[in-house]
Formats: sequence, C-alpha cells, structure tokens
Amino acid sequence: MDELDIEAVAEADLEDPVFVEGLPGVGHVGKLAADHILEELAEESTLVRRLYSREFPPQVSIEDGVTDLTCAEIHAVSVPDGRDLLVLTGDHQAQTNEGHYVLTDAFLDVAEEFGAGELYALGGVPTGELIDEYAVLGAVTREERIEPLEDVGVEFREDEPAGGIVGVSGLLLGLGKRRGFEGACLMGETSGYLVDPKSARAVLEILEAVLEFSLEYESLDERADEMEDVIGKIREMEQQQQAMDVPTDDDLRYIG
Amino acid sequence: MDELDIEAVAEADLEDPVFVEGLPGVGHVGKLAADHILEELAEESTLVRRLYSREFPPQVSIEDGVTDLTCAEIHAVSVPDGRDLLVLTGDHQAQTNEGHYVLTDAFLDVAEEFGAGELYALGGVPTGELIDEYAVLGAVTREERIEPLEDVGVEFREDEPAGGIVGVSGLLLGLGKRRGFEGACLMGETSGYLVDPKSARAVLEILEAVLEFSLEYESLDERADEMEDVIGKIREMEQQQQAMDVPTDDDLRYIG
Amino acid sequence: MDELDIEAVAEADLEDPVFVEGLPGVGHVGKLAADHILEELAEESTLVRRLYSREFPPQVSIEDGVTDLTCAEIHAVSVPDGRDLLVLTGDHQAQTNEGHYVLTDAFLDVAEEFGAGELYALGGVPTGELIDEYAVLGAVTREERIEPLEDVGVEFREDEPAGGIVGVSGLLLGLGKRRGFEGACLMGETSGYLVDPKSARAVLEILEAVLEFSLEYESLDERADEMEDVIGKIREMEQQQQAMDVPTDDDLRYIG
Amino acid sequence: MDELDIEAVAEADLEDPVFVEGLPGVGHVGKLAADHILEELAEESTLVRRLYSREFPPQVSIEDGVTDLTCAEIHAVSVPDGRDLLVLTGDHQAQTNEGHYVLTDAFLDVAEEFGAGELYALGGVPTGELIDEYAVLGAVTREERIEPLEDVGVEFREDEPAGGIVGVSGLLLGLGKRRGFEGACLMGETSGYLVDPKSARAVLEILEAVLEFSLEYESLDERADEMEDVIGKIREMEQQQQAMDVPTDDDLRYIG
Repeated sequence: MDELDIEAVAEADLEDPVFVEGLPGVGHVGKLAADHILEELAEESTLVRRLYSREFPPQVSIEDGVTDLTCAEIHAVSVPDGRDLLVLTGDHQAQTNEGHYVLTDAFLDVAEEFGAGELYALGGVPTGELIDEYAVLGAVTREERIEPLEDVGVEFREDEPAGGIVGVSGLLLGLGKRRGFEGACLMGETSGYLVDPKSARAVLEILEAVLEFSLEYESLDERADEMEDVIGKIREMEQQQQAMDVPTDDDLRYIG
Repeated sequence: MDELDIEAVAEADLEDPVFVEGLPGVGHVGKLAADHILEELAEESTLVRRLYSREFPPQVSIEDGVTDLTCAEIHAVSVPDGRDLLVLTGDHQAQTNEGHYVLTDAFLDVAEEFGAGELYALGGVPTGELIDEYAVLGAVTREERIEPLEDVGVEFREDEPAGGIVGVSGLLLGLGKRRGFEGACLMGETSGYLVDPKSARAVLEILEAVLEFSLEYESLDERADEMEDVIGKIREMEQQQQAMDVPTDDDLRYIG
Repeated sequence: MDELDIEAVAEADLEDPVFVEGLPGVGHVGKLAADHILEELAEESTLVRRLYSREFPPQVSIEDGVTDLTCAEIHAVSVPDGRDLLVLTGDHQAQTNEGHYVLTDAFLDVAEEFGAGELYALGGVPTGELIDEYAVLGAVTREERIEPLEDVGVEFREDEPAGGIVGVSGLLLGLGKRRGFEGACLMGETSGYLVDPKSARAVLEILEAVLEFSLEYESLDERADEMEDVIGKIREMEQQQQAMDVPTDDDLRYIG
Repeated sequence: MDELDIEAVAEADLEDPVFVEGLPGVGHVGKLAADHILEELAEESTLVRRLYSREFPPQVSIEDGVTDLTCAEIHAVSVPDGRDLLVLTGDHQAQTNEGHYVLTDAFLDVAEEFGAGELYALGGVPTGELIDEYAVLGAVTREERIEPLEDVGVEFREDEPAGGIVGVSGLLLGLGKRRGFEGACLMGETSGYLVDPKSARAVLEILEAVLEFSLEYESLDERADEMEDVIGKIREMEQQQQAMDVPTDDDLRYIG
C-alpha cells in the first residue's frame, strides 16, 4: 500500500454537496455528530470512499470476529428537502504532524471530486469543567461567514479557542481556504473529560439551522442520559470526598 | 541500503503454502511458536529470504563474536504429510507506525512470490494476571473462517481484543485482506508479564488442528517448566508479602 | 499541499537587502525584535512571501473569528536612509530536526531570490536568572566579521552559548555560509523564563548600529514596563517565601 | 541541502587504507580514541571529506566566535611505517533510527571511494561501576577474525554486549559486511558515567597491535589524570555518605 490509498466503494450523484467532518477529538463531539447524521439518514446514505493511509495507526479493528484495516470513510447523503452532504468519519486521526497535512489534502481531494465547495468541521472545545449550557463556538474561512452563523446562535469569542485549531479540523479550514473552499469550524463546548452527546446535539442543531435540514435525536439523547448518570455519580463522589476531607500531615506543615 | 532490501538466500518449491508469522510481541508467544516450528522441523526447513530494513532498529546481533545485521527471516518448510509453510520470524518489530506498513507489505510480497494465499498471524493477548487455562482467541479476514476455527477450539469473543490488533499481526490481516489473502490471527492468552511457552503451545496446537500436521513439544515444555519455577517464586513472594502487611502511616490516613 | 509551498504575495524591488530573522525562541527575543521592526516601519514594509509547510504544526490561527493556516512571513522593508531589509517572522518553528533544515533552506532561497547576501539571526540566550544588564552575544560566519560587531558592543565569549546554536537561527548561519551568505547571530541575554522586550531592544540597538538605521522604542518599552511589573511581583513572592521558610521534617533528617 | 551532502575538501592517495570510526558514544571512548590518533599524527593527516546531513541535529558549533554547521569529518592518515588510515570522527550521531542507516551507508561510500576494505569501529561498553582494569571486548564480521584479535588481547565473551551493538558502530559492521567489508568493533570497558581516556587508551593499544603502528599517549594520559581526580572525589563522597548513614523514618517502617 502506498502512503495513501483511496478506495472507490461506490459512486453517487450529488448536487453542490456540503462536506462535513467528524473525526475523533475532544469529547468525541465531532465523531458523535457525524455518526448521528449517518445513523438518522441511513437510508439516504451511501459509503462512497474509504481512505487507507500509513499515517493511521498500524491497526485493524474487529467486528464480530472479522478484522478491517483502519481507515476513514466518506458517505454521500441525499438529505430530504435539504442540501446533499458528504460526511467524513472514522476511528482515528493521523499519528504525526505531517500526517494531518497528508490526510487533510486527501479529504479535500475527495470533496472536490464530488463537487463540494463548502465544508463544516465539527468538534469540541474543552472548558475544563462540567457544564450545563452548551454553547457552540465558531471559526470561519472568511469574515462574511460570521454574521449568518451568529444569526443561528454560533458564538465568536476573542482569542477562543486559544492557540487556534489543531489537527484535521483546523487544516480543513486552513488548507481548504487556500484551495478555494468556504468553510466553518463548529465547536461544541464540552468538559473535555467525557464523551459528550449533549455537546454533539448542540453542534448538530446549529448545522440543521445552517443547512436547513432536520434530524431526530432520540438515540443521541439516550446516550446523553447514560452520560448524565455517569456525571451524577462523579458529582456525588466529589461531594462525599469534600465532606470527608480532614487535615492530613501535609496540611499541618507550614511549607509543603 | 535502501529502505528495504530483500535478500534471496535460497529458493524452494512449495505447493500452496500457508504463511505463518511469529514476530516478538506480548509474552513472546508468536515468536516462541514460530521458532518452535522451525526447531522441530529443522530438517524440512530452508531459509529462503532475509529482509533488511531501515525500519528495524540500527543494530547488529552478536553470536559467538560474529555480528549480523538485524533482519527478519522467512523459512520454507515442507511439512511431512501436511501443507507447506512459509514461516516468518525475527528479533524485532518495526520502530515506527509507518514502518509496520512498509514491512508488512514486504512480507506479503514474499508470501505472494511463493504462492501463498492463506496466512496465520501468531501472537499473545494480555490478561493482566497469571493464568492456568490458556484460551486462544481468534480474528479472521472473512466471516466464513470463524466456524472452522471454532470447531478446533478457537474462541471468538465480542470486543476482544479491545482496540483491535496492532502491529504486523494486525496489518497482515488488514493489508493482506485488501490484497486477496485469507487469514486469521491466533492469539494465546498470556499474563503479559512473562515469556510464555505454555501460551505458545496452546496456539500451536490450534495451528496443528487447522493445518493437519503435528509437532513434538518436549523442548517447549522444558522452557515452560523453567517459567513455572519463576512463577512459583513470584506467587510465594506475593503470599509472604501479604502475610507481612501491617498498617503503615498511609493506611491510617482517612484520605490518602 | 507539498512539503513546502511558497506563496508570492507581492513583489518588491530591493537593493542589496539584509535578511533578518526573528522566529519564536528563548524569551521570544528574536520574534519581538523582528515584529518591532515591522511595526515601526509599517509604512515602508510589504509582505512579499508566505511559506507554508508540513513541517509546521498542523494548525490554524484565529483572528477575529477568521482562520489562517500556520506560516512564516517575509516582509520587504525599505528603510529610510538605510539598507533595505527582508524580515522573516512567524508564530512557529519547525516540529522536527529535519524540518529545521528544510525550512531554513527555503528561507535562504527567498533571501537569494531578493538578492540578499548578508543575514542576521536574532534571538535570546538564557542566563537562568533575572538580569539587569542586557549583554548581546554574537557568533559569525567568518572571523573578519567579529571586530566590526565588537566595535558596536557585541560580546564574543569563549564557549558561549555552550553547545552552539540550535534551530533556524543556527542553520541560517550554518547552511547560509555553505551557500555563500555572510551572517551573524545576535543573541540578547535573557532569563529564559519570561517574554523579554528589554532583551529585544538590546538586540535591536546593535542592529541599528550595524545597519545604520534608527527605530522608535515607545511600544516596546511599554511592553517592557508591563513585564517589569510581573518581575517585581515574582521577586516580592520570593522574598516573602524566604521569610516564611521554617525547618521541615525533611530538613531535620541527616540524610534526605 | 539534500538529506546528505558530502563535501570533498581534499584528495589523498592512500594504499589499502583501514577505515577507523570514532563517533561520540558511551564514555566518549571511540571519539577520544579517534581524536587522539588525529592529534598524534597531525602532520600525517589530511581532512578529505565533510559529511553534512539533515539527520544530524539542526545546529552549528562555535569556535572563537565563528560558526560551523554540524558535520562528520573523515581524515586520511599516512601512518609512518604502518597501514594508511581513514579516520571518521565528529560531534554528533544521527538523531533517528533511519538516520543511522543513511549516515553509515554514506560513511561506507567514502570508505569504498578511498579503497578501504577493512574497518574498525571504536567505542565503549558500559559496566555500570568504576573499574580498574580496562578490558577491550570485540565483535567481528567473520569468525576467522576472532583468533588474531584474541592474540593481541581482545576478549570475546558470550552474550556481550547484551542486545548487540546499536548505532553507527553496529551498522558499520552490519551494513559493511553486506557490502563486502571485513571489520571489527573494539569496545573498551568503561563505567558509563564519565568521559574515559583510560578506556580510549586501552582500545588504541589494541589497534596499534593489530595495525602495527605506534602512538604517544602523553596528552591522553593527562586527560586520564584529570579524570582520576574527579573519580577520587566521587569515591571520597561515597565513603563519607556511607559513614553518615543513619536510620531514617523510612528505614523504621516494616513495609516501605
């Protein structure tokens, strides 16, 4: 296998599709969101491309005893009454800095091949603490795209996320812009400690508003409820521990 | 030397051979198994290829004062009354993610050159504790191969090994499947802490049943006995330590 | 994008320009200095080249909600009554050893393209403690260049900086010398713990003397004042802590 | 600069020269030895090749204020009444596994260019403790070379050095053997903690006996005396510390 190998699984006739990326990352927000689109619109979706690469970990996944080589998958989705989508998802990111560049360029090649000129990178932005209100932060390739996104609730904050956007989500905007794509990154706030279906829903609701389509959320909400149980237990444990905190030897020393 | 250099040491006329891989890994199960085949069938074995690569560590081994460059070796084995084998073994794995891809493709090239279309990757799967019963887990390239393996005792468990199979063993199935190979990974359970000849024997007994050949185990059992002595001492020390355990300062604190 | 992509943003007609490098490094001295030149001579400056590379981190920066792919920028500066400059700055260094070589060669390509034959690499050298007097150390491509620099106050000390000069600043001299460039590295002493505008000013004052141009320092001095406040607080805390130091259990042991 | 750049500094007419490598490593034994040859035979030595490479650290060294790009140097030495030598030395090893292969192949290219067919890799082997008697261990490319080396005092011990020989010294034998070179690695025992001129002398005395030439050792012995002072102080401190050892809190616990 060469450094990169794009397998044409099927073809699809899409009209001006929007490229949507959801690879694993903070809180698995992007991946949960992309997977949810494909689950809800399963009947309208076709797996069109698999991308294999030496930049992925040297690994096979196992499902029902059968192995499959690590890859990224791109599905064509004919959204009812909405714009067509090209949805990128997968189980892994590239393993090196250079790999992120190589893979992102390959993803953009496929996007171009299917006629996409607009893209949305979905992800999470860590807040460092458990949160109740799930804001969605935005970053865009061109200033003109800020206002329409603010109109549907996306927040643009000065110097956030600090340090910019790293990995495929960042490069899709960075390399994409240089290749003529218009795009935005939609980042759901999330604690950063847990898989976060609520943050994924917040991101998807923005995407629905922007692209004018609609999804059911029953399955994602179920996963969110499961996570709520986990969070509840964590909070309980935190409170118990605070109640039990007594001075220790270390606390009684003047200098630690 | 280029990134990869395949030395043709000898030729061999094999009929529909099965490729068997046993490189170092968890519990050295795969390497012990492959080395044991070559030891027991030494008279029927011919070293046919050496693979040198910049992906291996920059190192020579020393035997009786004489150095040899790190490499992987492939032996042709004419099994009496059984199918011919191509056995891959060596002292090292690749040192980078990309190296695993490069080397595995080279191994598959040699397998194809000798007409192999079926492969078995031998290895260990860590349980994290000392074990008495050595189950062998399986993973296959196609669903049809599960039942015949279950019939000879291989276990297929949901979500095991968690995270899939990493390294050459995984890629032989992953890249091999894409190149048209049929294959299976046979993973002997092993603690993960020690070299494990018993686990290697468990794996080999499965391989004997699948490929219908038979091996002697005297030498492997001797190594297993030596390991049993080591394990016995570890267990003794664990018990003594438990008996001696008295409360320490740390145990008397409410919060650690 | 290839490993390296040089974008021609604009052209500029420079006469025998001097190449000045100020990428991030110890105390951000080099970057502060280069940015200050571009800020003070903004009207005389033109962004002429952007260099994108897979050797940079896979990242976009965000300004006012708009993303830009990580790059290095080269500005042409027509210094009033002085020699023309080509000023290199950026937010990142290469991420690998090899990347430093690749990027430095690309920077030298641009320098040659604009007719530069002389270069100055600006940076900081860490002293490990807060300092009051900001010496500037030098290193040069040829012995003949030492005396003129000593005449304007640059210090050449035996075995300093110990271990030579690492990264783009070092390679600009090392690779540049092999390509026929004359050059010097000007390294402002700095604690190494803090962003250091005073050290940047010390370096720039040397550069002014060498290249016979002059800059205003109001904005840089303001940043220096801000840092002085930070340093003052650090010193205060150090003194308070010393006053509070009492013997601890550890101090009372004979052997720690 | 390409990945590798060999600069022809001068030519030399050598007769059947022996290639001798002494790059930095354990106890700097190899480098001390190679540098000592070049120092003692300075008048008979000519710098013939410099090798620059992206595999070296991105760094310049500084001598008397003047920078030079990191490189390896090969000197031609016309030994009085002895065989000609090609001596490789330098300040750095390659920074990656693959780099060791790339550089070693380049070194062998130069060796071939000058007609060398025999090589000696000089280095140290760590014992983990301060030593009084400096044995020299050997490893060779072919069995026939063991006896002549044993005759001049080289020791060949089973399974030493454990794990083989890593880096350029190992690869010179490993890759060299594949290209038809005859060679040996001479490894002086050394603590592994300190630069060790005594070990370097032990290695050189073997080389003198093998290649029938002779060196003065005054300068190396002076460095050895300086190191003896350091070692004396270390031993003194160890004894004082043992004398002062009193039970600590930790020692009084039953379980640590």
